[in-house]
Amino acid sequence: MDENFLLQTKTAQELYHNHAAKMPIFDYHCHISPQEIAADKRFDNLSQIWLYGDHYKWRAMRTNGVQERYCTGDASDWEKFEKWAETVPYTLRNPLYHWTHLELKKFFGIDKVLSPATAREVWETCNAKLNTPEYSCRNIIRMANVHTICTTDDPVDSLEYHRQIKASGFEVAVLPAWRPDKAMMVENPESFNTYVDKLGEAANIDIETFNDFMDAIDNRHQFFHENGCRLSDHGLETAYAEDYTEKEIQAIFAKVRKGQSLSQEEVLKFKSCMLYEFGIMDHSRGWTQQFHLGALRNNNTRLFRTLGPDTGFDSIGDFEVARPLSRLLDRLDMENQLAQTILYNLNPRDNELIATMIGNFQDGSVPGKVQFGSGWWFLDQKDGMEKQMQALSNLGLLSRFVGMLTDSRSFLSYTRHEYFRRTLCNLLGNDVENGEIPHDMELLGQMVENICFNNAYNYFKFNR
Amino acid sequence: MDENFLLQTKTAQELYHNHAAKMPIFDYHCHISPQEIAADKRFDNLSQIWLYGDHYKWRAMRTNGVQERYCTGDASDWEKFEKWAETVPYTLRNPLYHWTHLELKKFFGIDKVLSPATAREVWETCNAKLNTPEYSCRNIIRMANVHTICTTDDPVDSLEYHRQIKASGFEVAVLPAWRPDKAMMVENPESFNTYVDKLGEAANIDIETFNDFMDAIDNRHQFFHENGCRLSDHGLETAYAEDYTEKEIQAIFAKVRKGQSLSQEEVLKFKSCMLYEFGIMDHSRGWTQQFHLGALRNNNTRLFRTLGPDTGFDSIGDFEVARPLSRLLDRLDMENQLAQTILYNLNPRDNELIATMIGNFQDGSVPGKVQFGSGWWFLDQKDGMEKQMQALSNLGLLSRFVGMLTDSRSFLSYTRHEYFRRTLCNLLGNDVENGEIPHDMELLGQMVENICFNNAYNYFKFNR
Amino acid sequence: MDENFLLQTKTAQELYHNHAAKMPIFDYHCHISPQEIAADKRFDNLSQIWLYGDHYKWRAMRTNGVQERYCTGDASDWEKFEKWAETVPYTLRNPLYHWTHLELKKFFGIDKVLSPATAREVWETCNAKLNTPEYSCRNIIRMANVHTICTTDDPVDSLEYHRQIKASGFEVAVLPAWRPDKAMMVENPESFNTYVDKLGEAANIDIETFNDFMDAIDNRHQFFHENGCRLSDHGLETAYAEDYTEKEIQAIFAKVRKGQSLSQEEVLKFKSCMLYEFGIMDHSRGWTQQFHLGALRNNNTRLFRTLGPDTGFDSIGDFEVARPLSRLLDRLDMENQLAQTILYNLNPRDNELIATMIGNFQDGSVPGKVQFGSGWWFLDQKDGMEKQMQALSNLGLLSRFVGMLTDSRSFLSYTRHEYFRRTLCNLLGNDVENGEIPHDMELLGQMVENICFNNAYNYFKFNR
Repeated sequence: MDENFLLQTKTAQELYHNHAAKMPIFDYHCHISPQEIAADKRFDNLSQIWLYGDHYKWRAMRTNGVQERYCTGDASDWEKFEKWAETVPYTLRNPLYHWTHLELKKFFGIDKVLSPATAREVWETCNAKLNTPEYSCRNIIRMANVHTICTTDDPVDSLEYHRQIKASGFEVAVLPAWRPDKAMMVENPESFNTYVDKLGEAANIDIETFNDFMDAIDNRHQFFHENGCRLSDHGLETAYAEDYTEKEIQAIFAKVRKGQSLSQEEVLKFKSCMLYEFGIMDHSRGWTQQFHLGALRNNNTRLFRTLGPDTGFDSIGDFEVARPLSRLLDRLDMENQLAQTILYNLNPRDNELIATMIGNFQDGSVPGKVQFGSGWWFLDQKDGMEKQMQALSNLGLLSRFVGMLTDSRSFLSYTRHEYFRRTLCNLLGNDVENGEIPHDMELLGQMVENICFNNAYNYFKFNR
Repeated sequence: MDENFLLQTKTAQELYHNHAAKMPIFDYHCHISPQEIAADKRFDNLSQIWLYGDHYKWRAMRTNGVQERYCTGDASDWEKFEKWAETVPYTLRNPLYHWTHLELKKFFGIDKVLSPATAREVWETCNAKLNTPEYSCRNIIRMANVHTICTTDDPVDSLEYHRQIKASGFEVAVLPAWRPDKAMMVENPESFNTYVDKLGEAANIDIETFNDFMDAIDNRHQFFHENGCRLSDHGLETAYAEDYTEKEIQAIFAKVRKGQSLSQEEVLKFKSCMLYEFGIMDHSRGWTQQFHLGALRNNNTRLFRTLGPDTGFDSIGDFEVARPLSRLLDRLDMENQLAQTILYNLNPRDNELIATMIGNFQDGSVPGKVQFGSGWWFLDQKDGMEKQMQALSNLGLLSRFVGMLTDSRSFLSYTRHEYFRRTLCNLLGNDVENGEIPHDMELLGQMVENICFNNAYNYFKFNR
Repeated sequence: MDENFLLQTKTAQELYHNHAAKMPIFDYHCHISPQEIAADKRFDNLSQIWLYGDHYKWRAMRTNGVQERYCTGDASDWEKFEKWAETVPYTLRNPLYHWTHLELKKFFGIDKVLSPATAREVWETCNAKLNTPEYSCRNIIRMANVHTICTTDDPVDSLEYHRQIKASGFEVAVLPAWRPDKAMMVENPESFNTYVDKLGEAANIDIETFNDFMDAIDNRHQFFHENGCRLSDHGLETAYAEDYTEKEIQAIFAKVRKGQSLSQEEVLKFKSCMLYEFGIMDHSRGWTQQFHLGALRNNNTRLFRTLGPDTGFDSIGDFEVARPLSRLLDRLDMENQLAQTILYNLNPRDNELIATMIGNFQDGSVPGKVQFGSGWWFLDQKDGMEKQMQALSNLGLLSRFVGMLTDSRSFLSYTRHEYFRRTLCNLLGNDVENGEIPHDMELLGQMVENICFNNAYNYFKFNR
């Protein structure tokens, strides 16, 4: 894993070193904690910054026969790290192998392969560094040359940490993003009603009717806007675009507020309405909307009960994608109110579908108005990123792609941008080698810089 | 893009230059206008022959931020061309980049990369040539060494232009193909009834009952047959093969003729019946039937209302494919009346499904009786063609493949055959290089010639 | 096809020759006949051992225009072989081309390409060898260095041949595997009832109620266990996991026993119950369960009526996979009774889905508890195996993979393990060459040996 890692051709190497590497990082979607940035938190040891909350690693460890107490349980931080180090040699060909060593190298200058033989040394070297001020959250972000970060936030969030960060004068923009998943989860009346109450409180609105509910949401949307948010996000199995009437929705809302269970049809109607209304809202304030499609979540009930969500028991689903997604976007477009939109797809079998879907709603108003988002979650590896870029290239315009994001919960994941950039440069280098694109380094260098940073910067228009 | 474009190995180069390049083109499915061939039309400028009606290019331009007036609107031909030239550098890695330059080179001898810098020069060079008799439709067809063309025609078509072409002694066979999509579209009673009236007129039959309707269709089928047609084609989301009775179909037909709306179930029954009956008809006259499966059409209602169909707002769908398709083919086969059949698939995720489906109905009567059609529409690029050939190779017999077709509305698209042939030769060349197939140039050369021309020629048995 | 066939790099060659090639074969799933092994059968000629029962070859021959009498009909063995030899040159790029020549080379020392020109010579050479005792079933198995074989057996089977083989002292373990598909096929009351009667007889239980039925099944499960079986297998379109109550199942069973047809819902409930109960049973005796998912069978009714099942008319289906499969595994896991499980997938579009599904149920109890099975049936070719390993690598731990199996009806198919091993070594060799994994031959050599043999040996724990 030297400086030319993944760069198989001279062209790839030039593109990476002369163009990609120097661009700052525009990380427009992630799950890191604004609270930790506000506090400029430091971590006691490598397990805390690396293994806590990392369901990718837990999943690999379980697969490798490691017991739960070393993943999420009461084993010591060192024991957990040791088990991870034992697992690493078994992750060969998995992105964890690359991520692990890229992160050790980039942030800690470690060139060794992590294994039981090197575990103790790596542990001590990293911990020593983590215990210095140079390894606070903000300094790690600086080390990675990050320009902008968008976190993921619930509409009821006070955004106090975002304001603290801004007030502190931190030179990296740390912006909120609007993730209103809970406002759609009417399938569980109890938790939905709890949420509606919180929302009413946050908006200072007494929510009786569906109209009150929407007023409260709009109030929070405006509040997020005032705090620099220009981006929403939805985690969905698939898009929802059933027919419904306002009256029906009001009745459904009244029903669920009484704590009554809804039929499957009522749930779908309600979600369909919410997606439409969120879309209108995003358009009205000039935001971009993101849809993360295709995850089947919480498959393991036994461990969900113990550990909760996002602990490594989600997988790729096979939902109907095309028709509902087309309908949702079409409804918004028909009103001339389709916001800039990014579609992320978790099942690679649907890459081509998505890459052609975006073309249906490009209207010439802005380059790449509807985007096919980068390889996401399980697909955030060389193969997944290549397939996403291949589909986008063949069926759309790669040149207009807004590029990579970490989607991560860890401050060490910025190397995923490096991983992406190397993969991108390598693709282009191979094309040149094969005579499929011209050896025009000015054109290609500009294209690389655009995909790495400029396209996203121009597309999102944050703070402008 | 020199003479060895896409040909990465010596074997590939030999196969292409010694075998593929010399074969004439058998273009058994396209959408060019028989009227224009009959008139031997000439084009005023490059926009007219290149941008008019080309929804691929419009789609790319919209994605690149070009306004609609430069795509389908009232901008001048030069302005439209200029916007296209601005877009071309952004199409790197998209097949449009290759198609564009293959066409400029093949037909106009232009070796330059199209961009704003070269736009004016390319425009003038091409227009000067287009204004000579050497660039009439027929001469372009001759330039491309075309042997046979099948257009796409509605059953009510008079086929007058096909007869004019034949009468004129044009040495290239220009045959009609039977595309009866409108005869199945009972979901819209108004347009269906208008169509039934036209059909009755064309067949000189007063259509009262479903039986009259089928008589009229059979009458036109016979008329097409007399005019050299041996090929049908259906554009479908997926195959339809519901259970139905004759009585039900007669009732459905009577209902729709009264202008009444049908239930979803009735629509599916009717379409299922029609596909079966068309299949029987095709078999009885020794035709080949084609199914184009998987497009989700007219996704953008706003622009559909302004621009109509086929303007760049279709995309790849995710329909259930296997069971209905199996049932339809099985029904025909059970009666020993399954015609030669070609299945085209728009969603590459179903390539393997289709490549195994054809094997279910190979009956030894003729080599490759049921065919997996070439990479189509969005998939008409190197990657898409490779995946189709890979699936067909692994799961069927590539050697028996009837090969490429343009599926195009433009007279300049014959280079897609060149594109396909280079891709095919390159695949085989890589296999030889990797030791996966023997370096037997006689065997491979014959295989290439067969796939490029002979297989199609022998399979379709036109005019024989 | 020399000794470095498919091994493109020096690393691949070293891994194969120094590590893979020497490992014995652990063939944990196949369809060969225990009766033939018990009798140590010999074959009169190459057609008998090679073409009889080989629906892959029949399918290719039909595609190549060969009439049915040369596939399954009354043509002589030589005529059939001759037609196969004519077809072979047309199978270029299909795995049959590789399998054919690997088998001729490995077992008969023939280096020639099979074609009409060499047919007679190959026929005579092979027949001469087949007529010697060195080519009995057992000696072929020995020639292939097989360590363990699991056949595929119905619960009503007496397992007499397995006992004969054991009693004969044959040094290769030949174990039964439990395939109770017929015990779930309630959609056909007549054949189901015949089967239930046989089952009652085999278990010596008078089956009146559903509870009797389950007792009889459990009785046979125990009997299989006593005969060394530790492995079950289910051939399914997709997993079934509907809600049901015990009462409903008892009523459904009573209904079908009266010869009455069931509704689609009743059929699904019954199958859902059976899969759950089989899973509990497998777990209780420490077995591994296998699910073969995704085949659409018997598509050609006309030839099904003449030839029966498994004659080359099956293909790849497109069923909903994720949700029912997740539910089934979750139900078992919730009770802490999820057995070791292997999921085989016939539609490569679902590779990534399956590769993430297994991760949902890894519980750290044993490495690779839930496995993504090797490329199966149509996917048992270089491309299919590579895609399966690619998905498993990217989304799971390839290092813990239990590897290849023949799934074959022929004694000559052990070369498929060689084919797999070469493909595996080649993948790793390319990775090393590309700098994606370290050039650590000890680590990689061990990984290869594990995937070729050790992982399966340790996972199945047969006879221990």
